[in-house]
Amino acid sequence: MNFYAKRVKDLQALLKDAKIDALVVARPLETAFLTGFSMDGYIMLISRSDAWAFMPKMLLEQFNSKAPFIKAASCDNTLEAVISKIKEHKFKKAAFEPETETYLRGQFWAKNGCLEKKGFIASLRLIKEGEEITALRRSCRVAVEALRRIKPGLKTGRTELSVARELEDLMQAKGAKGPSFNLIIGFGPDSALPHHESSERKLKDNEAVLIDFGCVYGGYCSDMTRTFFHGRPTAEFLKVHAIVAAAQKAGVKAVKAGVKARLVDKTCRDYIADAGYGQYFIHGTGHGVGLEIHEAPTLNTKSEETLKAGMAVTVEPGIYLSGRFGVRIEDSVLVKKNGCEILTCE
Amino acid sequence: MNFYAKRVKDLQALLKDAKIDALVVARPLETAFLTGFSMDGYIMLISRSDAWAFMPKMLLEQFNSKAPFIKAASCDNTLEAVISKIKEHKFKKAAFEPETETYLRGQFWAKNGCLEKKGFIASLRLIKEGEEITALRRSCRVAVEALRRIKPGLKTGRTELSVARELEDLMQAKGAKGPSFNLIIGFGPDSALPHHESSERKLKDNEAVLIDFGCVYGGYCSDMTRTFFHGRPTAEFLKVHAIVAAAQKAGVKAVKAGVKARLVDKTCRDYIADAGYGQYFIHGTGHGVGLEIHEAPTLNTKSEETLKAGMAVTVEPGIYLSGRFGVRIEDSVLVKKNGCEILTCE
Repeated sequence: MNFYAKRVKDLQALLKDAKIDALVVARPLETAFLTGFSMDGYIMLISRSDAWAFMPKMLLEQFNSKAPFIKAASCDNTLEAVISKIKEHKFKKAAFEPETETYLRGQFWAKNGCLEKKGFIASLRLIKEGEEITALRRSCRVAVEALRRIKPGLKTGRTELSVARELEDLMQAKGAKGPSFNLIIGFGPDSALPHHESSERKLKDNEAVLIDFGCVYGGYCSDMTRTFFHGRPTAEFLKVHAIVAAAQKAGVKAVKAGVKARLVDKTCRDYIADAGYGQYFIHGTGHGVGLEIHEAPTLNTKSEETLKAGMAVTVEPGIYLSGRFGVRIEDSVLVKKNGCEILTCE
Repeated sequence: MNFYAKRVKDLQALLKDAKIDALVVARPLETAFLTGFSMDGYIMLISRSDAWAFMPKMLLEQFNSKAPFIKAASCDNTLEAVISKIKEHKFKKAAFEPETETYLRGQFWAKNGCLEKKGFIASLRLIKEGEEITALRRSCRVAVEALRRIKPGLKTGRTELSVARELEDLMQAKGAKGPSFNLIIGFGPDSALPHHESSERKLKDNEAVLIDFGCVYGGYCSDMTRTFFHGRPTAEFLKVHAIVAAAQKAGVKAVKAGVKARLVDKTCRDYIADAGYGQYFIHGTGHGVGLEIHEAPTLNTKSEETLKAGMAVTVEPGIYLSGRFGVRIEDSVLVKKNGCEILTCE
C-alpha cells in the first residue's frame, strides 16, 4: 500500500477508536502529511471508511495524479463542500482539530456542528517511522556534511550572513530543499543571543562562532548547533564550552523510551547549575523535529510528555553571557527503546 | 521617527477612530510588521497611547535592541501577560483580529472578553509606502535580472528543479533572502498545471517552458511568470501565447486607482473568452503582493475591492491545455493614481 494511503488508514483507525464519524483536515501541513501533495488550498474530510478532498478546479488534475487514493472534487467553496459532504453522509460526530485550525475556519466548523477533538494527526506525526526516519537521517547527514565543508573557510572578515548563505548552498547542492529555519550564525557577542538574526557582522580574530542550522530534506527538518572559537580561546570560553558539552552529553545519554521529557531537561539544567551557570541557561533543553522545525514533544521544566521510541528530538543546552559570548551545543536524536541514535553525529 | 514607530502610531490612530481601547497582535507576520523584529514567540498589546510586547526571557535583549520604542517585558505565559495588562489598565474595549488568529488563541482572547475586530493591520499592509515600495521594486528587479541571466542556459536536458535552484542562487547572490514561494518551473505538459511542483523532468527539444518565480528582498515578495518555447514553436503555441500576452497587457492597462479589482479580471477574461479559450483560463487574474506572496486584494470574478494607489498586485492570466502545454504571463505592478508601474518590466 502507498505510504500515504497507509497513513490515511491509520487515521481512520484512530477515528474509529475515538468513536468519531469524520474528521475535517484543513491546514496544509496536515493535508500534505496525509496525501503527499503539499499545496495550499484544499481541504480534506476523512471518515472511518472514506477520504475526500475539496479544491479549486486548477488543483484537481495535479491532486489526482499525486493522491489517487483520495476522492477528489473541485468546488467553488471548499468549506461549504465539506459541510455538504458531512450532511450527505449524515455523519453525527464530525470533528476538527482545534490545535491546527485558524480562528475563522474553526469557528465555521463549530457553527456547523463539528466537535473539537485534538491530537489525531499529532499522534501520527509524533512517532516517526519508515520513510520518515530515512528522510530525517538524510536531512541530518546533509547538515553535518555542510558543516564539515564550511569550517575551513571560517576566516577573519567573513560575515555571519555569508556563512548562512554558504551553508544553505552546500545543503541545497546535496539535495536539501532549503534551510529548516533562519540559520543562526552568531560571531562574538552575537553568539550570546539564542535566537540571533544573522547579520553583516564580520568575524574578528579571537571571538566565539555559534552556528545553529539545518535543512529540509524530503520534507523533514534537521537541527544542530556547534560553537567554536576563532583564534586563541580564552580560559573562560574553554570552561563554558566544556560545561555545555558535558551537560549536552549527559542530556543525550538520558534520552530513551519511557523517560519523562523533563528529566532530559533536568539532567542538562542540573549539570549547568552545579557548575555555577544556572542563571545563564535561559531556554528549554529541546523540542521535537520532523515536518516542522519545532514540534512535539517539548523538553523543558514543564514538559508532561514521556519519550517514546520513534520520537525525534533535539538536545541543546546553552550558556549565554550577555555582551560577551554564548555557547550552545545541539544534536537531533532519534529516541530508541534503550537509548537514542544521534542523527547529527559528526 | 523610526519607520516602525510610525506604523505603531498609525495603528493607534485607527484604534482611536474605531473607539477600541487596545488591540492584541500575536501572529508573527503582524508583530514583525509593527516592530521590525521578525521572531516567533512574542505577543503585542497596542493601546491608543502605549505599545507593549510580552516574550520569553531569551528574546528580551534582542527585542529591546531592535524595537526600543515598544515596552517589552519577559514572562512565563505571554497570553496571560496580555490579559493582565488589559485588566491593569482597565481597558473596556480590547480586541483581536479574527483573520490573523489561530483557533486556540482566538478562543482564549474571546473567553477573556476581547472583541473580534478585523482589518486594522490589514488596512495598513494594503497600501505600500516609502521603504516598502523601495523593497518591492528591488525585489522585482532582482527577479528580472535572475531571469535574464538564466535564459541562455535553458538547454535540452536541464531539469525543472535545476532551473529553480539556479534562479534561487542568482537571486540570493543579489541580496534576496530566498525564493518567495516554491518556484514553478514547468516543461512541456507540466506547464499546463498552474501550481505545478518543479520536478526532475528534463527539458526536451521543442516544448514549452513556464517559469513562475520571485524572491523575498527586504521582507517583500516579488512574483512574475514568463512562458517561452524551447525550439521551434508550434503554430498553436504562438497563437495561445499571443492571446495571453494581449490579455495580460490589456489587464495591466486596466489597473489604476479607483478601478474595481474585478474589472481587471474581466478585462483579461473577456479577451481570452473572445479568442475562444475561456474554459482554459482556470484561475483568478491576480492577487496582492507584499510581505506575503498572496495577500489582499484579490483580482477575480468575485472581488469586491476597489484598487487604490499604493496597492501592489499581480496580473497573470493563463491558458492551460491539459497534457500539452500552458501559457501564463505575469507581472507585479504598483497601482498609481492614473495607471500603474510595472515592477517586473524586463
